[in-house]
Amino acid sequence: MASEVINRFTPLFYPKSVAIIGASNDARKWGFGVLHNIIRAKFAGKIYPINRREELVCGLQAYPSIKETPEAVDLAIITIPPEAVPEVLSECVGKGVKAVVVITAGFGEVGAEEKKLQDKIARIAEEGNLLMIGPNCQGVMCSHSLLSPQIYGVFPLPGPFSMVSQSGNVGGSLLQWSKYQNTGFSKFVSSGNEATTSCEDLIEYFGEDTDTEVILCYLEGVGDGRRFLEVCQHATRKKPVVLLKGGKTSAGGRAVSSHTGKMSGSDEVFAAVCRQAGVIQVNDLQELFDLGMAFARQPLPRGNRVGIVTVGGGWGVLAADTCLEQGLEVVPLPAPTRAKLDEILPPRWSHNNPVDLAAAQGRDTLSKCLTILLSCPEIDGVIQIGVGMGTQFKEHMDDSPFFPVEIREKLCNRADENDRKTAESILNAMKEYRKPVTICSDNVGSYYEQSNMAIRALREQGIMVYSTPERAVRAMAALARYSDYRRKYS
Amino acid sequence: MASEVINRFTPLFYPKSVAIIGASNDARKWGFGVLHNIIRAKFAGKIYPINRREELVCGLQAYPSIKETPEAVDLAIITIPPEAVPEVLSECVGKGVKAVVVITAGFGEVGAEEKKLQDKIARIAEEGNLLMIGPNCQGVMCSHSLLSPQIYGVFPLPGPFSMVSQSGNVGGSLLQWSKYQNTGFSKFVSSGNEATTSCEDLIEYFGEDTDTEVILCYLEGVGDGRRFLEVCQHATRKKPVVLLKGGKTSAGGRAVSSHTGKMSGSDEVFAAVCRQAGVIQVNDLQELFDLGMAFARQPLPRGNRVGIVTVGGGWGVLAADTCLEQGLEVVPLPAPTRAKLDEILPPRWSHNNPVDLAAAQGRDTLSKCLTILLSCPEIDGVIQIGVGMGTQFKEHMDDSPFFPVEIREKLCNRADENDRKTAESILNAMKEYRKPVTICSDNVGSYYEQSNMAIRALREQGIMVYSTPERAVRAMAALARYSDYRRKYS
Repeated sequence: MASEVINRFTPLFYPKSVAIIGASNDARKWGFGVLHNIIRAKFAGKIYPINRREELVCGLQAYPSIKETPEAVDLAIITIPPEAVPEVLSECVGKGVKAVVVITAGFGEVGAEEKKLQDKIARIAEEGNLLMIGPNCQGVMCSHSLLSPQIYGVFPLPGPFSMVSQSGNVGGSLLQWSKYQNTGFSKFVSSGNEATTSCEDLIEYFGEDTDTEVILCYLEGVGDGRRFLEVCQHATRKKPVVLLKGGKTSAGGRAVSSHTGKMSGSDEVFAAVCRQAGVIQVNDLQELFDLGMAFARQPLPRGNRVGIVTVGGGWGVLAADTCLEQGLEVVPLPAPTRAKLDEILPPRWSHNNPVDLAAAQGRDTLSKCLTILLSCPEIDGVIQIGVGMGTQFKEHMDDSPFFPVEIREKLCNRADENDRKTAESILNAMKEYRKPVTICSDNVGSYYEQSNMAIRALREQGIMVYSTPERAVRAMAALARYSDYRRKYS
Repeated sequence: MASEVINRFTPLFYPKSVAIIGASNDARKWGFGVLHNIIRAKFAGKIYPINRREELVCGLQAYPSIKETPEAVDLAIITIPPEAVPEVLSECVGKGVKAVVVITAGFGEVGAEEKKLQDKIARIAEEGNLLMIGPNCQGVMCSHSLLSPQIYGVFPLPGPFSMVSQSGNVGGSLLQWSKYQNTGFSKFVSSGNEATTSCEDLIEYFGEDTDTEVILCYLEGVGDGRRFLEVCQHATRKKPVVLLKGGKTSAGGRAVSSHTGKMSGSDEVFAAVCRQAGVIQVNDLQELFDLGMAFARQPLPRGNRVGIVTVGGGWGVLAADTCLEQGLEVVPLPAPTRAKLDEILPPRWSHNNPVDLAAAQGRDTLSKCLTILLSCPEIDGVIQIGVGMGTQFKEHMDDSPFFPVEIREKLCNRADENDRKTAESILNAMKEYRKPVTICSDNVGSYYEQSNMAIRALREQGIMVYSTPERAVRAMAALARYSDYRRKYS
């Protein structure tokens, strides 16, 4: 069963050859953009541009129809006008093509007449045993095979995420952000109107796919609710499924109908199904990425008891509030842990959880505190608020009238070095204790974001630094909830 | 009454001379950091470092005590140990100092004994008619007088915000973010334990201060609930008060007591008071800034009817959902508006609100659509999703194997130019129609953030581009709710 699903999708993600039907030299056309992106992503297999008139497209030998390619074609990408799609699909079936991606729009999302055309191409694909993605989609991406037949031009490195999205643009946001955070993607599918291949099919596949560690979904509607529940239940016992639902309100639902032609259905029923299936349903686009990043790079906590380390009192208060709201327990510190902290912190420290460093100035105080909390058996994970404290110091030094330039440079370099070491210590401590640490700094989203060496060092390792305490806590809470679900079903 | 409040705070924000009691040449001490920041911010008045032993501190003539300064001192900043504060405060009274900021910690936030010391300094200040900020605070800032006696080293340009914060660090986040967004601050006060001067006093002052257009607050507890209600009611009829409350839960409340020594009180009662007073209470730190930025730079909408312009269908769905959840109406487009859009959009456009541009490629299609919606009398404000579409095009071109480098450069420059023009058109349309436009782009929070010329051009004018549709919608909803409140009371 698992291998059957894998085999079915292999020609889509790992084709030996790709044809672009509608390939064009005209840079304004999608037939250009898609071919251009295939070449830019350095796809290593055969590429066959299909164009009735041109001999060369983007410098490659073109063919007037898919029937004329010299060898078999595994995957065809279709960007021609909707009315021409049925005939071309039949030709694909005749040629023995195994998978197609219909990027062309103008089907069920437009109206009843166009829905008939969509039903027609669905029949051709099903009868021809052709795996079809779309129509009305933005393409697919597989980082392992350097395959990127899509309108969107961002290719992340290989990484833990796979995503099915009923919106190409929402998917594009995630591709872009994950590339910036150096986390990367395994596979991405913009599923469009889902005339034959549904999000259920893709979740099932991603569940079995060993390269996929975290499944991300943006959905506006589900065709087969029962099957959705089943495939999700199956997938979530192995890996997290993080899902954003569009069309939850009447206004959103109206927008859905002209977007992918779906019925978005009852929000309450959908949320109940997600809960039952162990799916992590998020509230907005930022949370989809925030929680995804935590699942991608953090171990699951053994429970919901957290420690908070903060360089500022108010931030610690906000984190503690959010912990309670999100079902995390801000545990009282056991006496041995307090004693260890007493040794390295000034007497004014909070003596409590959150651990407020109280402007302690030691070079490695922060990472020492973090390690003390991680080593405490009563703590399952740590929220770390503030990293890279040398960043502001550098700004102070930068225009300081009091120190000669050589001294300033030396102090700034030392601050950078300390911040890099802090990041390294955090990464090491996470590994040693196999407990999650979600991190935030208000330097994110400011001009300091690029000059904060701790943020940069963490990002190089794919660890996201959130901009606020609340975001870091919500990420930890999602880890704890999913961990709880996994313990129940393992 | 108003002028009395203004007069009382003038020595704090516009002093002619400042003494730093505890000024130090030791870069690890706060007495250095605070003096250093006063000098870095280019304060133009007299600066008197007070230090018992040194003749020069940071290159300035120092004095052994405030009694010895050659002239009167308007403002004294105190960074000496807590037990020495009472005597020094008495000396300040004797010298005729008008305002003091006690940065020193170790008072009510520590315990009952230390609370007595706090009560003692409160009495000295009150009896001596001395306006006192703190103790246990991080300082104050006034951009107009280039005054920055604070630990935190960020000085925004003059701008619409004034903030009172019971956390120095939370305030620091806002100072930093607003500097990055080129919006700027008028005044900032870290109010600490509020032994005499309370957040109520500061809200009252900011309400009367003509340089303050938007009041931001981070509070953990309020001393006098009735007075808080009164000053807020008074202020909110003139300008928005955006407030984040820390210590809403038991865990947060515990953290509060070791932070500022306050009782955080009942969350429900506080929320009800805020509603009654017209205060905009936000859910988290990001929202405090997001909504603040909208109030700082957007006109108030005349109602809650919005248009949505989007370059991607899914983003439009998410925006429409959030509008409904936030009480905004996604109005059906009147026939004349639809007709105007038909003229400039390809036939596949959504024909509905959200207006999905459906990958229309005209250079100025986006700004034309926006203008058509703004000119529609049935629409009070517009959510604009996606700006700077040339950014991705540039990435496509950057490594394109098909175009000579001169052509690529030319096309990229043209894309940048178009994006800058789009930003300009958006700014002009906002001015012309006096309606708010909240904007988002997923390029924010990615490597594209710096290369997106529309985002940069908008940011130069202090207009924030949010990273997600939901954030842009929540900002618009806050504008609509406050506008509704203002209409009721004007």
